[in-house]
Amino acid sequence: MVSAKHLVIGQSGGATAVINASLAEAIRAARERKEVDQIFGARYGIQGVLGKQVTDLRVLGDDDLQALARTPSAALGSCRYRLSEGEAEGALANLLALGAGYFLYIGGNDSADTGHQIALAAEAIGSDLRVVCVPKTIDNDLPETDHCPGYGSAARFLALAVQDSALCTESIPTHYPVKVIEVMGRDAGWLAAASALGQTREQDPPHLIYFPERPLDPDEFLADVERVHRSVGYVVVVVAETVRDLDGSPLGEGGHQGMDAFGHRLLAGAAPYLVSLVRDQLGLRARYDKPGDLQRMSSACVSEVDRMEAEMVGRDAVIAAVAHGQTDKMVTLVREQAGSGYASTTGLTDLDRIANQHRPLPAEFVSESGKGITAQFRDYALPLLGEPLPAPIRLDGPVVTW
Amino acid sequence: MVSAKHLVIGQSGGATAVINASLAEAIRAARERKEVDQIFGARYGIQGVLGKQVTDLRVLGDDDLQALARTPSAALGSCRYRLSEGEAEGALANLLALGAGYFLYIGGNDSADTGHQIALAAEAIGSDLRVVCVPKTIDNDLPETDHCPGYGSAARFLALAVQDSALCTESIPTHYPVKVIEVMGRDAGWLAAASALGQTREQDPPHLIYFPERPLDPDEFLADVERVHRSVGYVVVVVAETVRDLDGSPLGEGGHQGMDAFGHRLLAGAAPYLVSLVRDQLGLRARYDKPGDLQRMSSACVSEVDRMEAEMVGRDAVIAAVAHGQTDKMVTLVREQAGSGYASTTGLTDLDRIANQHRPLPAEFVSESGKGITAQFRDYALPLLGEPLPAPIRLDGPVVTW
Repeated sequence: MVSAKHLVIGQSGGATAVINASLAEAIRAARERKEVDQIFGARYGIQGVLGKQVTDLRVLGDDDLQALARTPSAALGSCRYRLSEGEAEGALANLLALGAGYFLYIGGNDSADTGHQIALAAEAIGSDLRVVCVPKTIDNDLPETDHCPGYGSAARFLALAVQDSALCTESIPTHYPVKVIEVMGRDAGWLAAASALGQTREQDPPHLIYFPERPLDPDEFLADVERVHRSVGYVVVVVAETVRDLDGSPLGEGGHQGMDAFGHRLLAGAAPYLVSLVRDQLGLRARYDKPGDLQRMSSACVSEVDRMEAEMVGRDAVIAAVAHGQTDKMVTLVREQAGSGYASTTGLTDLDRIANQHRPLPAEFVSESGKGITAQFRDYALPLLGEPLPAPIRLDGPVVTW
Repeated sequence: MVSAKHLVIGQSGGATAVINASLAEAIRAARERKEVDQIFGARYGIQGVLGKQVTDLRVLGDDDLQALARTPSAALGSCRYRLSEGEAEGALANLLALGAGYFLYIGGNDSADTGHQIALAAEAIGSDLRVVCVPKTIDNDLPETDHCPGYGSAARFLALAVQDSALCTESIPTHYPVKVIEVMGRDAGWLAAASALGQTREQDPPHLIYFPERPLDPDEFLADVERVHRSVGYVVVVVAETVRDLDGSPLGEGGHQGMDAFGHRLLAGAAPYLVSLVRDQLGLRARYDKPGDLQRMSSACVSEVDRMEAEMVGRDAVIAAVAHGQTDKMVTLVREQAGSGYASTTGLTDLDRIANQHRPLPAEFVSESGKGITAQFRDYALPLLGEPLPAPIRLDGPVVTW
């Protein structure tokens, strides 16, 4: 009989609204396995392994785990840390010195690279340490998985945010006719696309989406805004924070950066830059919303489908590593095609197929104009948002005059 | 027997998450009164009266009214319009020509001015038109009322937003140790204060709140940020978008405005300006969230207490105007002092006590440092947010090393 070994789990990269749901469910699953002795959480991801700082997770009671699953952000602390030469061996040595038999790492493509390097180091010395990664990213840009835990909730936040905030612009179009909403998503347009999921009619906002996969031409942008303003009466623009201009510089950086009267560099960023353009070139009042980290983490907008899947990948990572002895793998989400409703299950893929890879928004999800979404994208994404979005009512019946 | 007359209702000023709840309930109440004949909604506030554009609200069914009460923003359209010389008389003439006996106007202090002028014009010609205003503003800056419908939901959004977004900063403090969150509230600090309502421990974010009632000294700001960074390890700053510097200029305007390389004026604004300061003067990485109009209108963060009170003031405005023949009044919210739980009822006040007035955050609600809130403010504000805020769990147990 194999003696029980410790399990170490860490969280890495940008936090999400459901990354703790994966952690909580992995702890629950690990507690059920007799092959697992202690359960340790690495503080601040791999930094807690390299710096020998972990915390005991067996002390958490059922109520704690339930609260943990509903707490946004990475409760163990996270990091953005790339292993340098020799550090994978150092991390492995520390894990083995602790008595760890299992290392689970919840994160995205950078974290998969960390996991992969440690798995290779273990293989090189004939260690039986099992390394399994758990997917997590609001950006939804990991290959090999149908989608990523964290995306559904961020997508729900943005679909609601654009729907709600656009109603404000629609209600008072003479005051601020143009609204720009800046969204995240790194170099992939998955979140920008999600901002349109509240649309039910052709003229519904957002009217123009600028995806990070395509450069933004300021002249074309201004012509777009003017055209929508003429036809709809107000304009809601969504811009990815990483959109680049025709020269390849991020909007609001490079040539667009300014200095104030005291010589401080001013931050511009994509949305303030586009607002300035609209105001100066078209003479239209414009404002912007930049939800920033709120879109990662809104506890009020969690998709129950997303939370459930985050739990599922956490549990199945434990089962893969502990029960099946898998290593150098990431758990994936697999969409089940049978039946009419949405359902998903999990699979496994090699970490070297994830590490440092990224998946842009496919062309078939972008409308012909390049600034909207397709029905295919709606079919793909809407189930991930959980409960149906609330439908606003409009009082645009016939006008009575006298 | 008095013959039934028409009721005209409009929405004005910045929209809120519950302004349609007031509208829906006013329609329900008006349908129950035999003194009311037709029920008309003015499109875009007083502009729909001046321009003779109203819509029939009797056509709405019970399901429509239920959906309306849950739709954020002003479904009739809103305006920011100040009556000029003679326009009150013009609006009155249009209302009387339509056959209106009752005019209800949902809005803030500017809207109260509009209502007051029309009421005075009616009195001057001996018309029995009844004018009653319904309070609405996320800014909570109306005098005479304990609080304003719309505030509780915006306050709930901001308390949750700061709690959630700060957890992100706390989880990865070495990456972006400083976060600035820019909030609304015009010249009053009610919303800025609400951002701290998620605090449960002394060191909880937001660590520094810059209220619009006090100028911001950049040197003091930098010293504050440095001190909190040293003691807590990360810093969450809340800044009102209207905060002024020592010269009285809005932060990010005046001397702080920049030009980009192409000669476009750059928008700075309070949060981008403070982020630039932190980065350039302290060498700390900083980022900002600017929820913008999302804080007005988040359908996911509506306070049920706020929605219920928005309905109550809508209903009681109809009763005041129609059943009691009141005019030149605004409905107020009155906090009931008896018993242990929170309860409210309504009152009436004269419109000239509201028109163009505003109520700053009282000194006893601001902590001694000038950058936090007091227990008194918590007692005042927390009941308005509805359900208790979710409590995040922290995994900050003892560190195990080996």
